[in-house]
Amino acid sequence: MIIQTSTDVQNRRLTNGFMLTRVGVTDVKKPVRVVRQGRSNTLFCNIDVYVDLPSTQKGSHLSRNLEAINEVVDKGLRTGLPGIEVFAAELCRSLREKHEYCSYAEVRVTADYFMERPGPSGKPNLESFKIMARAVSHNNDGLKKLVGVEAIGMTACPCAMETVREKYCTNVALEGDLPVISHNQRNISSVMVEVPEHFDVEANELIEIVEASFSSPTYEVLKRSDEAKVVLQAHQKPKFVEDVVRTILGKILVKYPNLPDETLITARSESEESIHKHNAFAERVTTLGELRTGN
Amino acid sequence: MIIQTSTDVQNRRLTNGFMLTRVGVTDVKKPVRVVRQGRSNTLFCNIDVYVDLPSTQKGSHLSRNLEAINEVVDKGLRTGLPGIEVFAAELCRSLREKHEYCSYAEVRVTADYFMERPGPSGKPNLESFKIMARAVSHNNDGLKKLVGVEAIGMTACPCAMETVREKYCTNVALEGDLPVISHNQRNISSVMVEVPEHFDVEANELIEIVEASFSSPTYEVLKRSDEAKVVLQAHQKPKFVEDVVRTILGKILVKYPNLPDETLITARSESEESIHKHNAFAERVTTLGELRTGN
Amino acid sequence: MIIQTSTDVQNRRLTNGFMLTRVGVTDVKKPVRVVRQGRSNTLFCNIDVYVDLPSTQKGSHLSRNLEAINEVVDKGLRTGLPGIEVFAAELCRSLREKHEYCSYAEVRVTADYFMERPGPSGKPNLESFKIMARAVSHNNDGLKKLVGVEAIGMTACPCAMETVREKYCTNVALEGDLPVISHNQRNISSVMVEVPEHFDVEANELIEIVEASFSSPTYEVLKRSDEAKVVLQAHQKPKFVEDVVRTILGKILVKYPNLPDETLITARSESEESIHKHNAFAERVTTLGELRTGN
Amino acid sequence: MIIQTSTDVQNRRLTNGFMLTRVGVTDVKKPVRVVRQGRSNTLFCNIDVYVDLPSTQKGSHLSRNLEAINEVVDKGLRTGLPGIEVFAAELCRSLREKHEYCSYAEVRVTADYFMERPGPSGKPNLESFKIMARAVSHNNDGLKKLVGVEAIGMTACPCAMETVREKYCTNVALEGDLPVISHNQRNISSVMVEVPEHFDVEANELIEIVEASFSSPTYEVLKRSDEAKVVLQAHQKPKFVEDVVRTILGKILVKYPNLPDETLITARSESEESIHKHNAFAERVTTLGELRTGN
Repeated sequence: MIIQTSTDVQNRRLTNGFMLTRVGVTDVKKPVRVVRQGRSNTLFCNIDVYVDLPSTQKGSHLSRNLEAINEVVDKGLRTGLPGIEVFAAELCRSLREKHEYCSYAEVRVTADYFMERPGPSGKPNLESFKIMARAVSHNNDGLKKLVGVEAIGMTACPCAMETVREKYCTNVALEGDLPVISHNQRNISSVMVEVPEHFDVEANELIEIVEASFSSPTYEVLKRSDEAKVVLQAHQKPKFVEDVVRTILGKILVKYPNLPDETLITARSESEESIHKHNAFAERVTTLGELRTGN
Repeated sequence: MIIQTSTDVQNRRLTNGFMLTRVGVTDVKKPVRVVRQGRSNTLFCNIDVYVDLPSTQKGSHLSRNLEAINEVVDKGLRTGLPGIEVFAAELCRSLREKHEYCSYAEVRVTADYFMERPGPSGKPNLESFKIMARAVSHNNDGLKKLVGVEAIGMTACPCAMETVREKYCTNVALEGDLPVISHNQRNISSVMVEVPEHFDVEANELIEIVEASFSSPTYEVLKRSDEAKVVLQAHQKPKFVEDVVRTILGKILVKYPNLPDETLITARSESEESIHKHNAFAERVTTLGELRTGN
Repeated sequence: MIIQTSTDVQNRRLTNGFMLTRVGVTDVKKPVRVVRQGRSNTLFCNIDVYVDLPSTQKGSHLSRNLEAINEVVDKGLRTGLPGIEVFAAELCRSLREKHEYCSYAEVRVTADYFMERPGPSGKPNLESFKIMARAVSHNNDGLKKLVGVEAIGMTACPCAMETVREKYCTNVALEGDLPVISHNQRNISSVMVEVPEHFDVEANELIEIVEASFSSPTYEVLKRSDEAKVVLQAHQKPKFVEDVVRTILGKILVKYPNLPDETLITARSESEESIHKHNAFAERVTTLGELRTGN
Repeated sequence: MIIQTSTDVQNRRLTNGFMLTRVGVTDVKKPVRVVRQGRSNTLFCNIDVYVDLPSTQKGSHLSRNLEAINEVVDKGLRTGLPGIEVFAAELCRSLREKHEYCSYAEVRVTADYFMERPGPSGKPNLESFKIMARAVSHNNDGLKKLVGVEAIGMTACPCAMETVREKYCTNVALEGDLPVISHNQRNISSVMVEVPEHFDVEANELIEIVEASFSSPTYEVLKRSDEAKVVLQAHQKPKFVEDVVRTILGKILVKYPNLPDETLITARSESEESIHKHNAFAERVTTLGELRTGN
């Protein structure tokens, strides 16, 4: 029995089709081995991949996406990849090759990530984060790759703190001992930075930047006196979600003076408000060049 | 063409089967109309239903579950049901009848729920909650039905507050003006109460009980000075998740002196800790009788 | 005690700030009453709202967002709004007014939605869907509003069907009785359509379009012979996710010949593949004008 | 400044408290290193831990939970643990020691898990699963530990297949070539098995059992002719969720003849029905002894 090429249903010609912006597979889980500065780290990744599809072709060959994923995953297991964004970029390049009809390819990757971080008393502890990557290739524009991180921190509200002070601190002389009470809460913030060719951006550095932009980082283990220290430092640095995003942006500017002006940056902060049932949210989508002009 | 009864694949006899504890359908969405004290309220419900299955029968007739749901939903649309737990109970009874082979039936229902609540300055506002019901029927034990609510509130930590005071408030004479800073956070708490026959338990009363058990309720709209009031009242009533659960239990005891000792109670509280990446959790599963003995 | 204007922490001037693309609140839950063709429908909505923020201003006044939401919700409860996209548009306009410093406002709304749909034997049944709206206002560009729906349907794979036929149907003469086996699965598809001023787009019509674009719609209650009918019709109309999106686009073209060329359209389809652990996905983001040129 | 013991707010005596069934922390993320048969595997775990709390004590010392987790995680990193259920058991024992006031401790762990599985043509591929563990210690009853797995597979409906055959296959002589069409869908099934002291249960064996209980396993990569093979084998073995659970139970009985009668077993199967918007669900909670009596 011969399987004829007519079975390639995807390849069929259409005369009244529409082009499709993105066709692909979502929620593929694979372990990706990253080797960086001599240290090997296996990330359990969630992967989405897409290519576009011309109006004349019935279907995208979705199994080629899985073959591409497997090839780059295998390469990572054999030789290690220098970063999750390099995994995304290699996968994006492979998609462009395997889908000869496409003019666009996109890869999105997220993974849990653990990193040793100093506690309030200096003792290191393993804290959990998310690490993300994205790669996009469009026509002959070259490939863009981005790396990002998401961290859980704490924000204390500067507005409530001021209002409490004005409304309830009748004797101003009594102040100064400790910051005044406010509401504080869990905050989830992230930053994604484009990594242009011949440049490098460390996910670990991005985690340090995001953690330093909260009112306070959060910690999995806190002895009682460390807990007090965390509460104090959060209230000494009260922050809106707007402040968290702007602090991240400012630190990115200082940290990466050599990255070109076109470098894409997205910073985001969301607070699970303790006084409300809803969340507060702030975001900036921009380039380093725009930030450098002070806007 | 005649469809023969042999098509009833579910009804086939098995000789080497196992009984099954629960077989059913999950995540059915239906609008349920509740009429209570003259006010009609349509709840958008998520419904799970189960019955057990004898070892000798191949399959449960799942379409009968949907017929049962539709019949009770239709009855609600026509005449209104006095409560979501009555909806669950009627559905549970119907399952027992339609699945003549079952000795167990279970219904779980959850829905978003809106209720006017006074803000800190007294002005009412529509706040959002979850309302839940459960009904279980086992052999000839009679049917049990439960009603419950889930609310989002705020907890301020009593332990961090004390440690901050001892560690940083060097001049005790300065105290007294305002509570000392602590960490506070969003907390999600719930209570489920059995409603024995001939008794009634109001979901609205349960919402009032849960909200009064937090360090402070949360509010969707807060003017600046109300925000300060909320922060103050939360710090004047610092609470662990343990305290929230115990306060709920205590208020239930006071509110329902006539409910019998066998009445089932589950109270639960989870704080999205602002100083940690994980949550704090407390739960009590018990009966009113046990609580009345002070345990 | 006088609360001084200095407490308006949000209003403080910044000299080294960055503008923010979007600042707002997410996950606000409110009931929105829609009255359309004389029928009143209360939708339980999830609402996200955002405005931009100039670099010179410390914070956005988030409580104004909730005031705006409450005002439009109240108006809906009093007089009924003609559609969820009108709710989004009015809210978007109100955000522009209340945040005098903003040049951008965005509103996103989603809600569960029930609609009577004929079953395979013609008998109507209440089926569940999602309804969505979006409104965006940018500078003086005028306001854009979109309405959309999401439906759960079924796709049967055309490629597997052909391969099975070629590989296993040795005697071609035996064919013709019934379609050949394939894999089929749950599919979630959606379409969003811009509603230009002076035009109207019915969410109910969009649901009909999306449901007609699957291999088959899905049904909450199916008698045995209806179940067979659904299986047959799905296999008679096998579809990739690509086909579902293109069918939606084609039907939109036919249904709305009078909508202008600039009208924004997004169509999306995701299959929870039964032979894989991952999903298949297709999407088109475009305008009616582009579609009309056959691309 | 001396921190006095009074700061141990948790330890405070209560006179009108209630005991609490479970108090602890949820959603702690940690990497756990398992070494089994010489192969090291780092699992990214989600961990919930609980102990009970006497009515006389104000709070549970939640930071001890994190210390206990860290100690067992560190031991895993240093020496490797023989299984995720051993991790859960050691953690459970440590909780009992650290919370000297508790009479109950419970640990729940879940993690993504990858395992090489042969594809339909025999070629191995890395497939993704979930691995779970639970440990419970109650008074002097000794500690129970369970290990479990969750897998994504495919079910084809036996009832729709029969009804289609009876309703549409007019010429019975034409049958036999291929199974008749039916609806099929993604199914998520799991089994948890108690691991008594001095016994061992392999998670990898449990994955093989669950995968063999579907109509067909699912595969991340399928060449076209393999896809046809998967579709065929699924239709040759049509299964209700009830059948999947019973097949798992039967295979467990055969695989573990030496496990004692008291061994706890939970098997569960949920199908994301392709013809409905809701899921089908079946579950058995039992002991090996009950199963051995044929019930």
